[in-house]
Amino acid sequence: SVVNDEANGFPTLMDYVGKGGLNVGDDLVVLLTHLHYACKRIAALVASPFNSSLAKHMGGSAAGGSAESGRDVAKPLDIVSNEIILSSLRSSGKVAIMASEEDDSPIWINDDGPFVVVTDPLDGSHNIDASIPTGTIFGVYNRLVELDHLADKEKALLNSLQSGSRLVAAGYVLYSSATILCASFGSGTHAFTLDHSTGDFVVTHPNIKIPPRGQIYSVNDARYFDWPEGLRKYIDTVRQGKGKNPKKYSARYICSLVADFHRTLLYGGVAMNPRDHLRLVYEANPLSFLAEQAGGKGSNGKSRILSIQPVQVHQRLPLFLGSSEDMEELESYGDVQQKVNPGYEV
Amino acid sequence: SVVNDEANGFPTLMDYVGKGGLNVGDDLVVLLTHLHYACKRIAALVASPFNSSLAKHMGGSAAGGSAESGRDVAKPLDIVSNEIILSSLRSSGKVAIMASEEDDSPIWINDDGPFVVVTDPLDGSHNIDASIPTGTIFGVYNRLVELDHLADKEKALLNSLQSGSRLVAAGYVLYSSATILCASFGSGTHAFTLDHSTGDFVVTHPNIKIPPRGQIYSVNDARYFDWPEGLRKYIDTVRQGKGKNPKKYSARYICSLVADFHRTLLYGGVAMNPRDHLRLVYEANPLSFLAEQAGGKGSNGKSRILSIQPVQVHQRLPLFLGSSEDMEELESYGDVQQKVNPGYEV
Amino acid sequence: SVVNDEANGFPTLMDYVGKGGLNVGDDLVVLLTHLHYACKRIAALVASPFNSSLAKHMGGSAAGGSAESGRDVAKPLDIVSNEIILSSLRSSGKVAIMASEEDDSPIWINDDGPFVVVTDPLDGSHNIDASIPTGTIFGVYNRLVELDHLADKEKALLNSLQSGSRLVAAGYVLYSSATILCASFGSGTHAFTLDHSTGDFVVTHPNIKIPPRGQIYSVNDARYFDWPEGLRKYIDTVRQGKGKNPKKYSARYICSLVADFHRTLLYGGVAMNPRDHLRLVYEANPLSFLAEQAGGKGSNGKSRILSIQPVQVHQRLPLFLGSSEDMEELESYGDVQQKVNPGYEV
Amino acid sequence: SVVNDEANGFPTLMDYVGKGGLNVGDDLVVLLTHLHYACKRIAALVASPFNSSLAKHMGGSAAGGSAESGRDVAKPLDIVSNEIILSSLRSSGKVAIMASEEDDSPIWINDDGPFVVVTDPLDGSHNIDASIPTGTIFGVYNRLVELDHLADKEKALLNSLQSGSRLVAAGYVLYSSATILCASFGSGTHAFTLDHSTGDFVVTHPNIKIPPRGQIYSVNDARYFDWPEGLRKYIDTVRQGKGKNPKKYSARYICSLVADFHRTLLYGGVAMNPRDHLRLVYEANPLSFLAEQAGGKGSNGKSRILSIQPVQVHQRLPLFLGSSEDMEELESYGDVQQKVNPGYEV
Ligand SMILES: Nc1ncnc2c1ncn2[C@@H]1O[C@H](COP(=O)(O)O)[C@@H](O)[C@H]1O
Ligand SMILES: Nc1ncnc2c1ncn2[C@@H]1O[C@H](COP(=O)(O)O)[C@@H](O)[C@H]1O
Ligand SMILES: Nc1ncnc2c1ncn2[C@@H]1O[C@H](COP(=O)(O)O)[C@@H](O)[C@H]1O
Ligand SMILES: Nc1ncnc2c1ncn2[C@@H]1O[C@H](COP(=O)(O)O)[C@@H](O)[C@H]1O
Ligand SMILES: [Mg+2]
Ligand SMILES: [Mg+2]
Ligand SMILES: [Mg+2]
Ligand SMILES: [Mg+2]
Ligand SMILES: [Mg+2]
Ligand SMILES: [Mg+2]
Ligand SMILES: [Mg+2]
Ligand SMILES: [Mg+2]
Ligand SMILES: [Mg+2]
Ligand SMILES: [Mg+2]
Ligand SMILES: [Mg+2]
Ligand SMILES: [Mg+2]
Ligand SMILES: [Zn+2]
Ligand SMILES: [Zn+2]
Ligand SMILES: [Zn+2]
Ligand SMILES: [Zn+2]
Repeated sequence: SVVNDEANGFPTLMDYVGKGGLNVGDDLVVLLTHLHYACKRIAALVASPFNSSLAKHMGGSAAGGSAESGRDVAKPLDIVSNEIILSSLRSSGKVAIMASEEDDSPIWINDDGPFVVVTDPLDGSHNIDASIPTGTIFGVYNRLVELDHLADKEKALLNSLQSGSRLVAAGYVLYSSATILCASFGSGTHAFTLDHSTGDFVVTHPNIKIPPRGQIYSVNDARYFDWPEGLRKYIDTVRQGKGKNPKKYSARYICSLVADFHRTLLYGGVAMNPRDHLRLVYEANPLSFLAEQAGGKGSNGKSRILSIQPVQVHQRLPLFLGSSEDMEELESYGDVQQKVNPGYEV
Repeated sequence: SVVNDEANGFPTLMDYVGKGGLNVGDDLVVLLTHLHYACKRIAALVASPFNSSLAKHMGGSAAGGSAESGRDVAKPLDIVSNEIILSSLRSSGKVAIMASEEDDSPIWINDDGPFVVVTDPLDGSHNIDASIPTGTIFGVYNRLVELDHLADKEKALLNSLQSGSRLVAAGYVLYSSATILCASFGSGTHAFTLDHSTGDFVVTHPNIKIPPRGQIYSVNDARYFDWPEGLRKYIDTVRQGKGKNPKKYSARYICSLVADFHRTLLYGGVAMNPRDHLRLVYEANPLSFLAEQAGGKGSNGKSRILSIQPVQVHQRLPLFLGSSEDMEELESYGDVQQKVNPGYEV
Repeated sequence: SVVNDEANGFPTLMDYVGKGGLNVGDDLVVLLTHLHYACKRIAALVASPFNSSLAKHMGGSAAGGSAESGRDVAKPLDIVSNEIILSSLRSSGKVAIMASEEDDSPIWINDDGPFVVVTDPLDGSHNIDASIPTGTIFGVYNRLVELDHLADKEKALLNSLQSGSRLVAAGYVLYSSATILCASFGSGTHAFTLDHSTGDFVVTHPNIKIPPRGQIYSVNDARYFDWPEGLRKYIDTVRQGKGKNPKKYSARYICSLVADFHRTLLYGGVAMNPRDHLRLVYEANPLSFLAEQAGGKGSNGKSRILSIQPVQVHQRLPLFLGSSEDMEELESYGDVQQKVNPGYEV
Repeated sequence: SVVNDEANGFPTLMDYVGKGGLNVGDDLVVLLTHLHYACKRIAALVASPFNSSLAKHMGGSAAGGSAESGRDVAKPLDIVSNEIILSSLRSSGKVAIMASEEDDSPIWINDDGPFVVVTDPLDGSHNIDASIPTGTIFGVYNRLVELDHLADKEKALLNSLQSGSRLVAAGYVLYSSATILCASFGSGTHAFTLDHSTGDFVVTHPNIKIPPRGQIYSVNDARYFDWPEGLRKYIDTVRQGKGKNPKKYSARYICSLVADFHRTLLYGGVAMNPRDHLRLVYEANPLSFLAEQAGGKGSNGKSRILSIQPVQVHQRLPLFLGSSEDMEELESYGDVQQKVNPGYEV
């Protein structure tokens, strides 16, 4: 990565969003500078042999040595990630409010920050002990100046409940064998890969177009007996290559939303959780924005995610994301939202 | 990772296998030194924005710049990984023969190398464009000195076809959000996590014990209609929590064998491909060795993998790996090997 | 570096210059974002075993392999560094003109970039084969809008010839055992250390105050016989502890300006090259700005560097930098500029 | 550094010393594996913004945050480095005794370790606050089996006092803009550069030959008035280009022994400290071994370093290292050892 001819060859995230590129504006560039730094810190955390997650496997002597040496009892990585993201937003000077999966209520940061950020700081964190990919999800709105007169708590909440259709930018960072930042600023979906030798994100997937048809579906198939009729039929149909796309579909289910969505974005198909499980504000909306900007769709099985008016920061809903034709076919089965919820343990 | 009190705190792979630890012998230590270096190079490759896989997404100008600048047309990463592994085995001076997924026949390296290495250099490489985890699998046998008189080609082949029960060591390296080396030298299964700040593997999972029961199964559920009766019944049963373990099982299927196996080793359950698909010599045997050394099982659905006498380097078979009790229950369904193979595309 | 409690603990360069900190303005923040990325790439280059400098030692087969493999004949690292810096300034969108040691004339980049950047992209590059520290020096001026009506070449030149007293910001990046960025934005001199695990610069030396007195002088003592009387006397005096500071001074001479200056900034004393050798625009001015902002001085032996009106981009002059009291004492010897120049080879 | 064609291209330290290369034997390979890991940890320490040295500049809040968070009060980096080296030697299983600058007496490690290691764990550590290069120096002897019957303390001492002419191997690691390991195993002097993307040392300087003549001298010129007649004359002569080599010599003095020696090895000339200051056992001997193996010389100004019989672990002596012809010329001045020692402060 450091050979001579690369002096000009590989534009970075900062190049791409700057004046000669997407020209997203200095406020957003500065925010991104801080946010991508936070994500690199999270990437280092999830990779490290010394983080709370892997450390707990060290058992007897190693753990002892660690305690002896004055370390804090480890916080879960999703809490740490939340602190890292919040700290980066604070120091950017650009963010008025952060609404996060990890905080009961949105946090008021800064009276004149032009932006509102919604985030799932470490999506898929239940997977982390097995080193399965995780991700950070974020969405960016403009601060609603017409609410500036309200009390902090009130305006924090209302600013966070903006409709997904008003997103200024959204993205995720996938922590896997590579660290990939995928984002949209309202003109296409683009991905960038972290170059560990310099710490910057290099443009690797400009202008992603999700294939209109895929051949993969992603769902927890073990819930088959709890699914509604429509969903069962859809899955049985595509498994057998009897859908509009006359190919046998294949299953993949990492159970890490960012990873399953990233694959779906690149290969096509559908990724879903038909239960009232995923969160509208900081999971469904940002990913639907990215899907649409790549030519795909995001739906709750009945209607467009981005058009839903949020009423609670942590509200849940069924989520279906993917290729436009696969999504249309799936929705045509009507009854695809799983209402049954026996309280799964795993 | 570089704070003062860590001077003695975190033993590394090399510490762990050395004289004060497992004491595996200098020959094997030297081999490991070379092999783990190769795996770090592969980890850097799969992480890099400049590798063949991600680079192809760069499109017009970036790809052009790259060609202009005198680069080779990119080789697939599994071929590159094979070259990296071969090169490391060669320079170790410890390996007589390498049998790899990527080479038609085993390669004779060195007349007096004490070891024979079997390997899948980049397992799951079909996933790499979507940055889904991949892995390197390896197994180590002693060179059969009683075959030294044979011609190179002949002794290379026969040395590679040793029964899995004769494995001296086996392991994998998982390339995911963390880089994890998991290995057994015949006394337990142990995992180590790469510390990127120093380039060494730190002991994080000494003495892994696979839980006797899990609650996850891992299979391509889309093949349901092509499965034999026994397998369908087993899966339907555990999905509904009606098996010996009265819990609803959950599905996971990354479709990257090393990643699915790693999760299974840590969380329990079963990972399987019921078709004649995976390879005995360099996939099923090394992973079965690790499973057994962790208290689990590896089977073709009927009998123990490690007891099968290989007859071809690339021979395929159904593979089931996992928790002892889950594996016993699964095998009790009898008919679990999928004979139907319609030639899936994905 | 990635333990839990660091979520808020270590502010970075971006935090430090942002709204809650020095608040240098978004234009400058965006420029810094690009510039510090370029410097990280240079740091990776000078550290790499694969760069042109170290590679040439590889001799026969390795070099052959490298050529065979389609690599370009290596460019010197100072040329590559120049390209890297230029590329980063270009993509920042914030720079109208770059004047560099490596370009005969200043380069016009962008009509409405608010800034003019002067730079020595790889100072000390003659040292690089022996892995002696090197550095990047930069200075930032506002574009003179009153010159906007002139032809490109003319306004590029005149903008680059601004007096050092008009510097908006200046800095260097030292490439040594640590990678250190030291900068001033007109309110103190501050240094930041690269955290390799995340790729960001962490605040480590806020508000550097150069000691008013040091005990080290830095000069090429081998030139003693070519020095003027005043300089000889000064050096002989401090060597013997007979100056105003009644201590025996010690000599240090890395012969890498950034490294010698960095030590002088932290420990005090004087660093000098009494010959007409170093460059006013992109060496003497930026470093004098940093010295003054830290409470020290920069002089040509007779007068203040920052008050000299540049007349040529590459003009040379004697340079003395350091502690205020040591500098005053040195200047009091009057005759300290070396006019003799026999054309040294080393 | 991770492009395709590098699969075979760049041999590493481990390749170079292995069976196809220098074939130094498994015991030494295993020792090197552990030792080079320790040096990578030290390299990470001296590079880190979070180490004790840089951290102390952080002042008020940062330091407070650090204390709050339960960290130990920082140990000096040379002590930490000593612990890291000792820990690596211990876990290698190959070392009977370590004698270090940082320990009053040699440490008995392991009854049947075949080797004795002498070391300066962090040479030049007084420079570290200014990020000037530092290094680790080591020498390796065989354990003297004829002393095995003695008490631990006694045999530890006598084993450590072997004559430098019995060195089996010696080397240093330079921590500068690149991290360079330079070593000899008795057949030439070779250097390797750390590839940060993989954590391994790549062969970059095979078979170093120090030029028979250089044009640089390295000494603390500020001591001129305390030098003996012979040394003054020598330095005055070469400064003026009046020596056997009719060129004006140039001065360089980093005052970090490993860095000054590394430059001398590559460029030629002489590096010296004419006072009774440097240590025979773990500084002068290992570096003299490397100098001789590269065709140069190591002397105390009168006789060959490697032929001196050590009588104390920490004994000091004048040290002169460099090009054979420059060293001969220097020694011909006779009186070059500085006896005067006024107790310099810097
Ligand atoms: N690919 C996916 N599709 C749908 N739901 C998912 C997916 N991955 C994870 N989930 C669900 O999200 C829950 C975890 O949420 P989180 O903690 O935000 O990762 C899991 O229990 C899953 O049920
Ligand atoms: N977790 C898994 N369990 C069973 N089979 C798998 C798994 N992951 C990958 N495979 C199969 O292995 C094939 C890829 O083999 P390979 O190229 O060695 O990764 C895929 O097409 C899958 O069918
Ligand atoms: N610390 C220093 N003080 C004065 N001059 C220096 C210093 N370091 C390097 N130089 C001079 O700068 C020249 C190299 O310039 P550059 O190529 O810009 O590093 C050398 O030949 C030295 O004469
Ligand atoms: N290049 C050098 N040549 C001779 N002596 C040196 C050199 N570098 C450092 N020293 C001396 O070694 C002392 C430091 O020793 P150490 O703590 O081992 O680095 C310094 O005070 C110097 O006097
Ligand atoms: Mg959570
Ligand atoms: Mg989530
Ligand atoms: Mg979360
Ligand atoms: Mg393959
Ligand atoms: Mg495979
Ligand atoms: Mg493979
Ligand atoms: Mg130059
Ligand atoms: Mg310069
Ligand atoms: Mg330069
Ligand atoms: Mg010391
Ligand atoms: Mg020393
Ligand atoms: Mg020391
Ligand atoms: Zn979540
Ligand atoms: Zn495979
Ligand atoms: Zn220069
Ligand atoms: Zn020392």
